[in-house]
Amino acid sequence: MSLKLYHAPGTCALAPLIALEEANVAFEAVWVDTAAGVQRQPEYLALNPKGRVPLLAVEGRGLLSETPAILAYIAQRFPEARLGPVDDPFAWAQVQSFNSYLCATVHVAHAHGRRGERWADDPAAIEAMRRKVPQTMAECFDLIEAGLPDGPWVMGEDYSICDPYLYTITRWLAGDGVEVARYPKVQAHLLRMDGRPAVIRALVLGHDTVARA
Amino acid sequence: MSLKLYHAPGTCALAPLIALEEANVAFEAVWVDTAAGVQRQPEYLALNPKGRVPLLAVEGRGLLSETPAILAYIAQRFPEARLGPVDDPFAWAQVQSFNSYLCATVHVAHAHGRRGERWADDPAAIEAMRRKVPQTMAECFDLIEAGLPDGPWVMGEDYSICDPYLYTITRWLAGDGVEVARYPKVQAHLLRMDGRPAVIRALVLGHDTVARA
Repeated sequence: MSLKLYHAPGTCALAPLIALEEANVAFEAVWVDTAAGVQRQPEYLALNPKGRVPLLAVEGRGLLSETPAILAYIAQRFPEARLGPVDDPFAWAQVQSFNSYLCATVHVAHAHGRRGERWADDPAAIEAMRRKVPQTMAECFDLIEAGLPDGPWVMGEDYSICDPYLYTITRWLAGDGVEVARYPKVQAHLLRMDGRPAVIRALVLGHDTVARA
Repeated sequence: MSLKLYHAPGTCALAPLIALEEANVAFEAVWVDTAAGVQRQPEYLALNPKGRVPLLAVEGRGLLSETPAILAYIAQRFPEARLGPVDDPFAWAQVQSFNSYLCATVHVAHAHGRRGERWADDPAAIEAMRRKVPQTMAECFDLIEAGLPDGPWVMGEDYSICDPYLYTITRWLAGDGVEVARYPKVQAHLLRMDGRPAVIRALVLGHDTVARA
Protein backbone atom coordinates (compact mmCIF):
# COMPACT_ATOMS: atom_id res chain seq x y z
CA MET A 1 0.00 0.00 0.00
CA SER A 2 1.98 2.97 -1.26
CA LEU A 3 1.41 6.42 0.18
CA LYS A 4 1.15 9.76 -1.60
CA LEU A 5 0.96 13.04 0.33
CA TYR A 6 -0.40 16.13 -1.41
CA HIS A 7 1.16 19.18 0.23
CA ALA A 8 2.12 22.82 -0.26
CA PRO A 9 4.83 24.93 1.38
CA GLY A 10 3.76 27.14 4.27
CA THR A 11 0.71 25.02 5.07
CA CYS A 12 -0.06 22.52 7.83
CA ALA A 13 0.89 19.77 5.37
CA LEU A 14 4.34 20.14 6.87
CA ALA A 15 3.12 18.21 9.93
CA PRO A 16 2.31 14.93 8.11
CA LEU A 17 5.44 15.36 5.97
CA ILE A 18 7.48 15.35 9.17
CA ALA A 19 5.50 12.44 10.64
CA LEU A 20 6.10 10.34 7.52
CA GLU A 21 9.81 11.18 7.65
CA GLU A 22 9.86 10.26 11.36
CA ALA A 23 8.22 6.94 10.53
CA ASN A 24 10.96 6.44 7.96
CA VAL A 25 8.60 4.99 5.37
CA ALA A 26 8.59 5.40 1.61
CA PHE A 27 6.04 7.86 0.26
CA GLU A 28 5.58 10.22 -2.66
CA ALA A 29 5.28 13.94 -1.97
CA VAL A 30 3.09 15.77 -4.48
CA TRP A 31 3.41 19.56 -4.45
CA VAL A 32 0.02 21.20 -5.02
CA ASP A 33 0.75 24.68 -6.36
CA THR A 34 -1.71 26.59 -4.17
CA ALA A 35 -0.25 29.94 -5.32
CA ALA A 36 -1.46 29.04 -8.83
CA GLY A 37 -4.84 27.83 -7.47
CA VAL A 38 -4.30 24.18 -8.42
CA GLN A 39 -6.26 23.12 -5.31
CA ARG A 40 -9.40 24.68 -6.82
CA GLN A 41 -9.04 23.03 -10.24
CA PRO A 42 -11.33 20.12 -11.16
CA GLU A 43 -8.54 17.53 -11.15
CA TYR A 44 -7.67 18.24 -7.52
CA LEU A 45 -11.27 18.82 -6.39
CA ALA A 46 -12.05 15.32 -7.70
CA LEU A 47 -9.55 14.03 -5.13
CA ASN A 48 -10.43 16.45 -2.32
CA PRO A 49 -13.68 18.42 -2.70
CA LYS A 50 -12.52 20.64 0.16
CA GLY A 51 -9.80 22.10 -2.09
CA ARG A 52 -7.21 21.94 0.67
CA VAL A 53 -3.97 20.27 1.58
CA PRO A 54 -2.80 17.99 3.10
CA LEU A 55 -4.39 14.98 1.47
CA LEU A 56 -3.06 11.45 1.89
CA ALA A 57 -3.70 8.82 -0.79
CA VAL A 58 -3.41 5.28 0.54
CA GLU A 59 -3.20 2.78 -2.30
CA GLY A 60 -5.94 0.18 -2.11
CA ARG A 61 -7.90 2.08 0.53
CA GLY A 62 -8.61 5.64 -0.51
CA LEU A 63 -8.08 9.29 0.31
CA LEU A 64 -7.75 10.92 3.70
CA SER A 65 -8.10 14.63 4.45
CA GLU A 66 -7.81 16.66 7.69
CA THR A 67 -4.44 16.99 9.37
CA PRO A 68 -5.35 15.40 12.75
CA ALA A 69 -6.77 12.33 10.99
CA ILE A 70 -3.77 11.96 8.67
CA LEU A 71 -1.36 12.25 11.61
CA ALA A 72 -3.32 9.70 13.64
CA TYR A 73 -3.34 7.32 10.69
CA ILE A 74 0.44 7.54 10.30
CA ALA A 75 0.95 6.82 14.02
CA GLN A 76 -1.51 3.91 14.07
CA ARG A 77 -0.37 2.35 10.80
CA PHE A 78 3.32 2.45 11.80
CA PRO A 79 3.26 1.70 15.53
CA GLU A 80 6.95 0.72 15.45
CA ALA A 81 7.74 4.39 14.79
CA ARG A 82 6.36 5.20 18.25
CA LEU A 83 4.57 8.37 17.22
CA GLY A 84 2.08 8.22 20.08
CA PRO A 85 0.53 5.99 22.78
CA VAL A 86 -1.80 4.28 20.33
CA ASP A 87 -2.60 1.41 22.70
CA ASP A 88 -3.79 3.53 25.65
CA PRO A 89 -7.22 5.03 24.83
CA PHE A 90 -6.91 7.87 27.38
CA ALA A 91 -3.33 8.86 26.53
CA TRP A 92 -4.11 8.59 22.84
CA ALA A 93 -7.19 10.78 23.33
CA GLN A 94 -4.95 13.42 24.94
CA VAL A 95 -2.89 13.40 21.75
CA GLN A 96 -6.04 13.83 19.69
CA SER A 97 -7.26 16.57 22.01
CA PHE A 98 -4.07 18.59 21.59
CA ASN A 99 -4.14 18.19 17.80
CA SER A 100 -7.85 18.99 17.64
CA TYR A 101 -7.18 22.28 19.46
CA LEU A 102 -4.40 23.13 17.00
CA CYS A 103 -6.70 22.36 14.07
CA ALA A 104 -10.01 23.87 15.19
CA THR A 105 -8.84 26.84 17.28
CA VAL A 106 -5.20 27.79 16.58
CA HIS A 107 -5.14 27.15 12.83
CA VAL A 108 -8.56 28.82 12.56
CA ALA A 109 -7.27 31.89 14.45
CA HIS A 110 -4.30 32.07 12.05
CA ALA A 111 -6.54 31.70 8.99
CA HIS A 112 -8.44 34.87 9.91
CA GLY A 113 -5.33 36.81 8.92
CA ARG A 114 -5.15 35.41 5.40
CA ARG A 115 -8.46 33.81 4.56
CA GLY A 116 -11.01 36.16 6.11
CA GLU A 117 -13.13 35.93 2.97
CA ARG A 118 -14.17 32.49 4.18
CA TRP A 119 -16.28 34.10 6.93
CA ALA A 120 -17.30 37.56 5.67
CA ASP A 121 -17.62 39.41 2.35
CA ASP A 122 -17.12 42.99 3.54
CA PRO A 123 -13.48 44.13 3.04
CA ALA A 124 -13.62 46.16 6.26
CA ALA A 125 -14.70 43.04 8.17
CA ILE A 126 -11.87 41.04 6.63
CA GLU A 127 -9.45 43.76 7.70
CA ALA A 128 -10.95 43.75 11.23
CA MET A 129 -10.31 40.00 11.42
CA ARG A 130 -6.75 40.47 10.25
CA ARG A 131 -6.10 43.06 12.98
CA LYS A 132 -7.15 40.69 15.75
CA VAL A 133 -4.88 37.78 14.72
CA PRO A 134 -1.89 38.79 16.90
CA GLN A 135 -4.21 38.83 19.93
CA THR A 136 -5.99 35.54 19.22
CA MET A 137 -2.76 33.72 18.34
CA ALA A 138 -1.11 35.06 21.51
CA GLU A 139 -4.07 33.84 23.58
CA CYS A 140 -3.84 30.39 21.99
CA PHE A 141 -0.13 30.17 22.73
CA ASP A 142 -0.64 31.43 26.31
CA LEU A 143 -2.83 28.39 26.78
CA ILE A 144 -0.42 26.03 25.01
CA GLU A 145 2.58 27.33 26.99
CA ALA A 146 0.71 26.89 30.28
CA GLY A 147 -0.19 23.31 29.37
CA LEU A 148 3.19 22.09 28.12
CA PRO A 149 5.01 19.70 30.43
CA ASP A 150 8.63 20.08 31.47
CA GLY A 151 9.52 17.10 29.30
CA PRO A 152 11.08 17.74 25.93
CA TRP A 153 7.94 16.94 23.95
CA VAL A 154 4.28 17.99 23.96
CA MET A 155 3.25 14.77 25.70
CA GLY A 156 6.25 14.81 28.08
CA GLU A 157 9.01 12.25 27.75
CA ASP A 158 7.80 10.69 24.52
CA TYR A 159 7.74 12.24 21.06
CA SER A 160 4.34 12.04 19.32
CA ILE A 161 2.35 13.38 16.35
CA CYS A 162 1.61 16.46 18.49
CA ASP A 163 5.21 17.61 18.03
CA PRO A 164 5.32 18.12 14.26
CA TYR A 165 1.90 19.75 14.35
CA LEU A 166 2.85 22.21 17.12
CA TYR A 167 6.14 22.90 15.33
CA THR A 168 4.32 23.66 12.07
CA ILE A 169 1.98 26.19 13.67
CA THR A 170 4.66 27.73 15.91
CA ARG A 171 6.55 28.59 12.71
CA TRP A 172 3.60 30.81 11.74
CA LEU A 173 3.78 32.95 14.90
CA ALA A 174 6.25 35.57 13.68
CA GLY A 175 4.20 36.13 10.52
CA ASP A 176 1.14 36.54 12.72
CA GLY A 177 2.82 39.30 14.71
CA VAL A 178 3.61 37.26 17.81
CA GLU A 179 7.13 36.82 19.19
CA VAL A 180 7.81 33.17 20.00
CA ALA A 181 10.22 34.34 22.73
CA ARG A 182 7.13 35.18 24.82
CA TYR A 183 6.70 31.42 25.27
CA PRO A 184 9.87 29.81 26.66
CA LYS A 185 8.65 26.21 26.48
CA VAL A 186 7.24 26.64 22.99
CA GLN A 187 10.47 28.29 21.86
CA ALA A 188 12.59 25.50 23.31
CA HIS A 189 10.34 23.00 21.55
CA LEU A 190 10.76 24.85 18.25
CA LEU A 191 14.55 24.77 18.52
CA ARG A 192 14.53 21.11 19.59
CA MET A 193 12.43 20.22 16.55
CA ASP A 194 14.68 22.27 14.24
CA GLY A 195 17.49 19.85 15.04
CA ARG A 196 15.74 16.62 14.15
CA PRO A 197 16.92 15.02 10.91
CA ALA A 198 13.34 14.07 9.94
CA VAL A 199 12.29 17.72 10.29
CA ILE A 200 15.10 18.95 8.07
CA ARG A 201 14.30 16.29 5.47
CA ALA A 202 10.61 17.26 5.54
CA LEU A 203 11.38 20.98 5.17
CA VAL A 204 13.55 20.31 2.14
CA LEU A 205 11.13 17.83 0.60
CA GLY A 206 8.19 20.19 1.21
CA HIS A 207 9.96 23.21 -0.31
CA ASP A 208 9.48 24.95 3.00
CA THR A 209 11.97 27.53 4.18
CA VAL A 210 14.43 26.05 6.61
CA ALA A 211 15.25 29.53 7.93
CA ARG A 212 12.37 31.29 9.69
CA ALA A 213 11.30 34.93 9.62
CA MET B 1 -12.84 4.66 36.54
CA SER B 2 -15.99 6.70 36.76
CA LEU B 3 -16.85 9.23 34.05
CA LYS B 4 -18.23 12.75 34.38
CA LEU B 5 -19.29 14.77 31.34
CA TYR B 6 -19.55 18.55 31.63
CA HIS B 7 -22.11 19.75 29.10
CA ALA B 8 -24.59 22.50 28.23
CA PRO B 9 -27.77 22.44 26.18
CA GLY B 10 -27.50 23.61 22.57
CA THR B 11 -23.76 22.87 22.37
CA CYS B 12 -21.76 20.10 20.72
CA ALA B 13 -21.64 18.37 24.13
CA LEU B 14 -24.79 16.62 22.92
CA ALA B 15 -22.59 14.40 20.73
CA PRO B 16 -20.60 12.77 23.58
CA LEU B 17 -23.79 12.60 25.68
CA ILE B 18 -25.33 10.49 22.92
CA ALA B 19 -22.16 8.40 22.50
CA LEU B 20 -22.08 7.61 26.23
CA GLU B 21 -25.76 6.65 26.12
CA GLU B 22 -25.09 4.46 23.08
CA ALA B 23 -22.26 2.76 24.97
CA ASN B 24 -24.75 2.16 27.76
CA VAL B 25 -22.22 2.99 30.48
CA ALA B 26 -22.73 4.76 33.79
CA PHE B 27 -21.64 8.40 33.86
CA GLU B 28 -22.49 11.64 35.58
CA ALA B 29 -23.75 14.54 33.49
CA VAL B 30 -22.80 17.95 34.92
CA TRP B 31 -24.72 20.89 33.48
CA VAL B 32 -22.43 23.91 33.05
CA ASP B 33 -24.71 26.96 33.03
CA THR B 34 -23.13 28.72 30.05
CA ALA B 35 -25.95 31.29 29.95
CA ALA B 36 -24.81 32.41 33.41
CA GLY B 37 -21.15 32.35 32.34
CA VAL B 38 -20.14 29.49 34.65
CA GLN B 39 -17.66 28.28 32.00
CA ARG B 40 -15.64 31.48 32.52
CA GLN B 41 -15.56 31.29 36.33
CA PRO B 42 -12.32 30.24 38.09
CA GLU B 43 -13.72 26.93 39.31
CA TYR B 44 -14.47 25.77 35.79
CA LEU B 45 -11.39 27.32 34.19
CA ALA B 46 -9.30 25.31 36.67
CA LEU B 47 -10.75 22.19 35.03
CA ASN B 48 -10.75 23.47 31.44
CA PRO B 49 -8.70 26.63 30.74
CA LYS B 50 -10.46 26.85 27.36
CA GLY B 51 -13.71 27.73 29.11
CA ARG B 52 -15.74 25.45 26.90
CA VAL B 53 -17.87 22.34 26.99
CA PRO B 54 -17.78 19.39 26.55
CA LEU B 55 -15.22 18.22 29.06
CA LEU B 56 -14.85 14.60 30.15
CA ALA B 57 -13.37 13.76 33.56
CA VAL B 58 -12.00 10.22 33.71
CA GLU B 59 -11.38 9.18 37.30
CA GLY B 60 -7.78 8.15 37.88
CA ARG B 61 -6.60 9.55 34.54
CA GLY B 62 -7.57 13.18 34.07
CA LEU B 63 -9.55 15.60 31.98
CA LEU B 64 -10.24 15.50 28.28
CA SER B 65 -11.45 18.40 26.12
CA GLU B 66 -12.30 18.70 22.40
CA THR B 67 -15.32 16.87 21.03
CA PRO B 68 -13.51 14.66 18.45
CA ALA B 69 -11.07 13.44 21.12
CA ILE B 70 -13.83 12.72 23.66
CA LEU B 71 -15.84 10.82 21.06
CA ALA B 72 -12.80 8.79 19.99
CA TYR B 73 -12.02 7.99 23.62
CA ILE B 74 -15.55 6.68 24.23
CA ALA B 75 -15.35 4.47 21.14
CA GLN B 76 -11.90 3.13 21.98
CA ARG B 77 -12.54 2.60 25.68
CA PHE B 78 -15.80 0.72 25.07
CA PRO B 79 -15.09 -1.30 21.92
CA GLU B 80 -17.98 -3.65 22.71
CA ALA B 81 -20.33 -0.73 21.97
CA ARG B 82 -19.11 -0.82 18.35
CA LEU B 83 -18.99 2.95 17.92
CA GLY B 84 -16.41 2.81 15.13
CA PRO B 85 -13.82 0.61 13.35
CA VAL B 86 -11.20 1.17 16.05
CA ASP B 87 -9.04 -1.76 14.91
CA ASP B 88 -8.62 -0.63 11.28
CA PRO B 89 -6.25 2.38 11.11
CA PHE B 90 -7.53 3.59 7.74
CA ALA B 91 -11.24 3.17 8.45
CA TRP B 92 -10.77 4.72 11.89
CA ALA B 93 -8.91 7.65 10.33
CA GLN B 94 -11.90 8.21 8.03
CA VAL B 95 -14.04 8.53 11.17
CA GLN B 96 -11.57 11.04 12.61
CA SER B 97 -11.46 12.92 9.31
CA PHE B 98 -15.22 13.35 9.23
CA ASN B 99 -15.33 14.50 12.84
CA SER B 100 -12.37 16.82 12.35
CA TYR B 101 -14.21 18.52 9.48
CA LEU B 102 -17.31 18.94 11.67
CA CYS B 103 -15.16 20.43 14.44
CA ALA B 104 -12.74 22.66 12.54
CA THR B 105 -14.88 23.79 9.59
CA VAL B 106 -18.61 23.27 10.20
CA HIS B 107 -18.74 24.15 13.91
CA VAL B 108 -16.41 27.10 13.20
CA ALA B 109 -18.71 28.33 10.40
CA HIS B 110 -21.67 28.11 12.81
CA ALA B 111 -19.78 29.93 15.56
CA HIS B 112 -19.36 33.00 13.33
CA GLY B 113 -23.08 33.62 13.79
CA ARG B 114 -22.95 33.76 17.57
CA ARG B 115 -19.36 34.19 18.66
CA GLY B 116 -17.95 36.60 16.10
CA GLU B 117 -16.22 38.53 18.89
CA ARG B 118 -13.69 35.70 18.99
CA TRP B 119 -12.25 36.87 15.66
CA ALA B 120 -12.94 40.64 15.42
CA ASP B 121 -13.75 43.54 17.73
CA ASP B 122 -15.64 45.81 15.33
CA PRO B 123 -19.45 45.36 15.68
CA ALA B 124 -19.89 45.86 11.92
CA ALA B 125 -17.41 43.04 11.26
CA ILE B 126 -19.24 40.78 13.70
CA GLU B 127 -22.48 41.56 11.90
CA ALA B 128 -20.81 40.85 8.53
CA MET B 129 -19.75 37.43 9.82
CA ARG B 130 -23.26 36.73 11.05
CA ARG B 131 -24.70 37.52 7.62
CA LYS B 132 -22.49 34.97 5.87
CA VAL B 133 -23.38 32.01 8.12
CA PRO B 134 -26.31 30.72 6.00
CA GLN B 135 -23.96 30.60 2.99
CA THR B 136 -21.01 28.94 4.74
CA MET B 137 -23.20 26.38 6.54
CA ALA B 138 -24.98 25.58 3.26
CA GLU B 139 -21.61 25.05 1.54
CA CYS B 140 -20.47 22.74 4.35
CA PHE B 141 -23.64 20.68 4.10
CA ASP B 142 -23.42 20.56 0.28
CA LEU B 143 -20.08 18.83 0.79
CA ILE B 144 -21.40 16.55 3.56
CA GLU B 145 -24.48 15.57 1.51
CA ALA B 146 -22.31 14.75 -1.52
CA GLY B 147 -20.04 12.56 0.62
CA LEU B 148 -22.67 10.59 2.54
CA PRO B 149 -23.05 6.96 1.49
CA ASP B 150 -26.39 5.32 0.72
CA GLY B 151 -26.09 3.33 3.93
CA PRO B 152 -28.09 4.47 6.93
CA TRP B 153 -25.08 5.94 8.77
CA VAL B 154 -22.26 8.36 8.03
CA MET B 155 -19.79 5.51 7.56
CA GLY B 156 -22.26 3.34 5.63
CA GLU B 157 -23.68 0.19 7.16
CA ASP B 158 -22.22 0.65 10.62
CA TYR B 159 -23.13 3.28 13.21
CA SER B 160 -20.16 5.25 14.57
CA ILE B 161 -19.22 8.32 16.60
CA CYS B 162 -19.69 10.35 13.40
CA ASP B 163 -23.45 9.91 13.70
CA PRO B 164 -24.12 11.71 17.00
CA TYR B 165 -21.74 14.50 15.96
CA LEU B 166 -23.39 15.04 12.56
CA TYR B 167 -26.82 14.87 14.24
CA THR B 168 -25.81 17.52 16.79
CA ILE B 169 -24.66 19.98 14.15
CA THR B 170 -27.52 19.23 11.74
CA ARG B 171 -29.87 20.34 14.53
CA TRP B 172 -28.26 23.81 14.30
CA LEU B 173 -29.06 24.27 10.60
CA ALA B 174 -32.52 25.82 10.94
CA GLY B 175 -31.20 28.37 13.45
CA ASP B 176 -28.42 29.17 10.98
CA GLY B 177 -30.93 29.96 8.26
CA VAL B 178 -30.50 26.76 6.24
CA GLU B 179 -33.35 24.35 5.46
CA VAL B 180 -32.33 20.79 6.19
CA ALA B 181 -34.74 19.65 3.45
CA ARG B 182 -32.15 20.86 0.92
CA TYR B 183 -30.10 17.80 1.90
CA PRO B 184 -32.13 14.58 1.52
CA LYS B 185 -29.50 12.23 2.96
CA VAL B 186 -28.72 14.53 5.88
CA GLN B 187 -32.43 14.93 6.59
CA ALA B 188 -33.02 11.18 6.50
CA HIS B 189 -30.07 10.78 8.89
CA LEU B 190 -31.56 13.38 11.25
CA LEU B 191 -34.90 11.57 11.38
CA ARG B 192 -33.20 8.17 11.79
CA MET B 193 -31.20 9.52 14.73
CA ASP B 194 -34.31 11.11 16.27
CA GLY B 195 -35.72 7.64 16.72
CA ARG B 196 -32.83 6.08 18.61
CA PRO B 197 -33.51 5.50 22.31
CA ALA B 198 -29.97 6.64 23.23
CA VAL B 199 -30.57 9.93 21.43
CA ILE B 200 -33.82 10.57 23.25
CA ARG B 201 -32.19 9.74 26.60
CA ALA B 202 -29.28 12.10 25.82
CA LEU B 203 -31.60 14.95 24.81
CA VAL B 204 -33.56 14.62 28.05
CA LEU B 205 -30.43 14.23 30.18
CA GLY B 206 -28.74 17.18 28.44
CA HIS B 207 -31.79 19.48 28.87
CA ASP B 208 -31.80 19.84 25.10
CA THR B 209 -35.07 20.43 23.29
CA VAL B 210 -36.42 17.23 21.84
CA ALA B 211 -38.52 19.22 19.36
CA ARG B 212 -36.54 21.23 16.83
CA ALA B 213 -37.18 24.69 15.38
